[in-house]
Amino acid sequence: MYRSHTCGELSESHINKVVTLSGWVHKIRDKGFVTWVDLRDRYGITQLVFDEDRTSSALIAQARDLGREFVIQVKGTVIERASKNPNIPTGNIELLVEELIVLNESKTPPFTIEDETDGGEDIRMKYRYLDIRRNPVKDSLIFRSKVSMAVRKYLSDEGFIEVETPYLIKSTPEGARDFVVPSRMNEGQFYALPQSPQTFKQLLMVGGLDKYFQIVKCFRDEDLRADRQPEFTQIDCEMAYVEQEDILNAFEGLTKHLLKEVKGIEIENFPRMTFDDAMKKYGNDKPDIRFGMEFGELNEIAQHKDFNVFNAAELVVGIAVPGGNSYTRKEIDKLTDWVKRPQVGALGMVYCRCNDDGTFKSSVDKFYDQDDFAKWAAATGAKPGDLICVLSGNTNKVRAQLSALRMEMAERLKLRNPEEFAPLWVIDFPLLELDEETGHYHAMHHPFTSPKPGQLELLDTDPGAVKANAYDLVLNGNEIGGGSIRIHDKEMQATMFKHLGFTPEEAKAQFGFLMDAFQYGAPPHGGLAFGLDRLVAILGGQETIRDFIAFPKNNSGRDVMIDAPAAIDDAQLKELNLKLDIQS
Amino acid sequence: MYRSHTCGELSESHINKVVTLSGWVHKIRDKGFVTWVDLRDRYGITQLVFDEDRTSSALIAQARDLGREFVIQVKGTVIERASKNPNIPTGNIELLVEELIVLNESKTPPFTIEDETDGGEDIRMKYRYLDIRRNPVKDSLIFRSKVSMAVRKYLSDEGFIEVETPYLIKSTPEGARDFVVPSRMNEGQFYALPQSPQTFKQLLMVGGLDKYFQIVKCFRDEDLRADRQPEFTQIDCEMAYVEQEDILNAFEGLTKHLLKEVKGIEIENFPRMTFDDAMKKYGNDKPDIRFGMEFGELNEIAQHKDFNVFNAAELVVGIAVPGGNSYTRKEIDKLTDWVKRPQVGALGMVYCRCNDDGTFKSSVDKFYDQDDFAKWAAATGAKPGDLICVLSGNTNKVRAQLSALRMEMAERLKLRNPEEFAPLWVIDFPLLELDEETGHYHAMHHPFTSPKPGQLELLDTDPGAVKANAYDLVLNGNEIGGGSIRIHDKEMQATMFKHLGFTPEEAKAQFGFLMDAFQYGAPPHGGLAFGLDRLVAILGGQETIRDFIAFPKNNSGRDVMIDAPAAIDDAQLKELNLKLDIQS
Repeated sequence: MYRSHTCGELSESHINKVVTLSGWVHKIRDKGFVTWVDLRDRYGITQLVFDEDRTSSALIAQARDLGREFVIQVKGTVIERASKNPNIPTGNIELLVEELIVLNESKTPPFTIEDETDGGEDIRMKYRYLDIRRNPVKDSLIFRSKVSMAVRKYLSDEGFIEVETPYLIKSTPEGARDFVVPSRMNEGQFYALPQSPQTFKQLLMVGGLDKYFQIVKCFRDEDLRADRQPEFTQIDCEMAYVEQEDILNAFEGLTKHLLKEVKGIEIENFPRMTFDDAMKKYGNDKPDIRFGMEFGELNEIAQHKDFNVFNAAELVVGIAVPGGNSYTRKEIDKLTDWVKRPQVGALGMVYCRCNDDGTFKSSVDKFYDQDDFAKWAAATGAKPGDLICVLSGNTNKVRAQLSALRMEMAERLKLRNPEEFAPLWVIDFPLLELDEETGHYHAMHHPFTSPKPGQLELLDTDPGAVKANAYDLVLNGNEIGGGSIRIHDKEMQATMFKHLGFTPEEAKAQFGFLMDAFQYGAPPHGGLAFGLDRLVAILGGQETIRDFIAFPKNNSGRDVMIDAPAAIDDAQLKELNLKLDIQS
Repeated sequence: MYRSHTCGELSESHINKVVTLSGWVHKIRDKGFVTWVDLRDRYGITQLVFDEDRTSSALIAQARDLGREFVIQVKGTVIERASKNPNIPTGNIELLVEELIVLNESKTPPFTIEDETDGGEDIRMKYRYLDIRRNPVKDSLIFRSKVSMAVRKYLSDEGFIEVETPYLIKSTPEGARDFVVPSRMNEGQFYALPQSPQTFKQLLMVGGLDKYFQIVKCFRDEDLRADRQPEFTQIDCEMAYVEQEDILNAFEGLTKHLLKEVKGIEIENFPRMTFDDAMKKYGNDKPDIRFGMEFGELNEIAQHKDFNVFNAAELVVGIAVPGGNSYTRKEIDKLTDWVKRPQVGALGMVYCRCNDDGTFKSSVDKFYDQDDFAKWAAATGAKPGDLICVLSGNTNKVRAQLSALRMEMAERLKLRNPEEFAPLWVIDFPLLELDEETGHYHAMHHPFTSPKPGQLELLDTDPGAVKANAYDLVLNGNEIGGGSIRIHDKEMQATMFKHLGFTPEEAKAQFGFLMDAFQYGAPPHGGLAFGLDRLVAILGGQETIRDFIAFPKNNSGRDVMIDAPAAIDDAQLKELNLKLDIQS
């Protein structure tokens, strides 16, 4: 038996008991006459004491030989501490050690095993097993486990069945960015790893399992942006015999339950906003509504006043930055530079100071008078002391730019409180999205999303105007879930494929099994998927997902700890009937 | 709203209520003046009634137009049935339909959606979404979900953390039969899909997460035997600061919990048997102990009596088949033919009838007398009325042959009751196994298994004799779980790799990250993995795992429903820097 207790559980009630502990040597303080060792395990830290009065000199020597992160087992008597530490649960006691066994030695770790470590990202990833010993990572992984369990328990109690769908599926050219897996037994053929279990969950609905969920890994071989992973985890859900309202209610219930269970927060009904409104008010389909700064559109009041920049613009739109009138001219210039960075891409920024006395001072004073600015203030909700920032140009672009500015200002003003949670349903997404490069429309969500009733005809005349039964759940400015009511009619699915540019042959080759299934009594169905990595990070009050993934990959898709991917040997390639074809 | 109730919940308490149901048309019985439709969903069947007295002729016509598996929505009044059906929960009521909407039509399904279907395995797999509508498959999938949830809940309550380990890992030539995944972003390099999360769970122990579990897909590209799948699910577990006894207790606890939770069966402490004893008594390292027929070794009593077949044999061993003396000579000859089939491979079988009067009659009467046979009976536990079957030859081979005969006789005698559960720990497995083809020893479990204390020296002198801290959990003759105490010392791991034929360079290239990790304070640890597919099937009283997997692959590793694997297009290959290299 390596331990009778963990390092996190001893308290005054154990005084005078003889216990055995095992763990890692966290810290050693040698004061000559007395040596303290902090012994650490998953559960906490217990202070070990060795002193000249009560400890044999051999044992003291042994203790002095310990190094950081040695694995030891100790037996001793729990005693009251002379100087108590109220900051840790075991702070009232210490262990007077009588026996010490070194279970394993340790080289000095390449970074300190502390909450605030001296190790940079790269070295921590290479030695991830040491990084996991640190509380912030360890606690994040335990938190993730707790969230997953809460999800499973809630959905199971609601009658959802967790079904494991296959990982070795079929590649679809349409779904570019599949990872593929050569089959040894089926020469020249490949499996693909699923980007999502979409078609399988729909087949489960056809199969009558009317409430399905799965916490499942998905894979996407795309050029990684920061904080994207080639493998990621979804809470994947689907229901049959439901309308959009049923699904929103079901997963609003789940989200409320999580907020209550893991954060102790109770939230009433989640607000809903159409995609069009979200774009209009926040320039963003996943607005962070923890703070205001709603967009005020100024076309009617700011155009046709001799200011040609605005007159030529498709959209003139501003926000009121709270307290922004305190900015110096230099600060405002820096802000203008910020919106002109290529990552944001605005051509310039017009501002208007809202003075405390109710007057206005703007960079475009010569085109507008005080009455005009009063209208700007009314449209953007600006109050005395605020700064109105106005951008103009192409509607889509200027909305994205002003949204970036709004988020940046919220960061600077510390309006994005990680312990505040503001969920929002964004509904009525467009069915199709124009690909600016190719000029073709493609499915905004995926090709199985159903258009709103009665809008199918628009597909021919104004495809971009067709709205879908599609919805996202947004939390604190992040899309944490999204889904739709699916098409369950074979003819409509065929029509949809046609509009997405599939020939009937292509549709059959790639999705024939689904269209076949729709011939045999497919019920109305729909669903949603949450991104678990992101959801857990947000619930954990973090912006980055990496600490919530045990063994994440870097931005090149590499696992630097195990050094993968790697070359494989020729024999293995030959068995797979493959040859490398490297362009050098 | 598609339904106010499900098809499984209406009872007499709902009589006179107006309800809405949705589901599939299961059966239609048209008696002219009255038409009954059985409406089915996941939860059950409700009888719909349309009759000339109470139903409009338009509605009756609509009902008559329905076909099997049409998806319909009906609104109507719950009424008492004239002729009740006590066999189903809704058998006391029926629904007098007032409105009927066809939500989707259906072609006639290619097999009947009944518990006993007319569809063969192949067609059921192609239309798996229809197969899942059948109760035996649907119930198996729901049962699996329930078992998984019970596992998770138990382990979470015991302080285990579920950690998701990566799916895109590194191929190890040692672990042949990896599925590999070409990396687009890392030219000429490949990920591998994990055959198990073995090294990752060990790293989690090094990382201090001392109780880990995960229900996780694993992948093995091996030539498939019946009832093997290229992707399969494990309950993967690991603990730190534990000895073998701690692990056996932890997972005996889990197994007891499952038996109680999902089967309502309470089992006291599980028996334990060494590997050597299991081989001696049952010729098998996963003995089914629901029944006897233990082996009786006869070398001492049957050799050196002029019967050269036995005299030349390394092992002479028999079992007593209960009641087998009733077999005719012809039946015994057929049994002899059965053991001589290539799949079993015995050269012949000696038998001895145990007559009711206490006398014996054997195929080798001329070499042995009644006293000899009495000793055979004593050794095999044969009673009057039994038949002793004796095989002889090479120890390992003859044990496997007699084990096959023992299992066959148990099948024939119906001694393998699927509703009886007999768990057994088999412990003290050999560390190494001789590969008869190459003459090399390889790890019986895996190269991370620790030898029993004090046996490391034997590695040089008698490698086959070294026992490991390795154990299997056997249930009804199936290995449902297996594990070991791992090596946590870098030197011992290096020694082990050396004995397994790795050069230090190979060991470093493949497992360097693990050996590095062992330098930084690796705690003693060990674990176990259960095969979930098999476990669920056995708990479900089935021998085959396929109905417990939503979308299984066939024996060629193909998903015949989606037709995967499949060719991928040249552009995709080119992006992956690969060329096909087909030997024709």
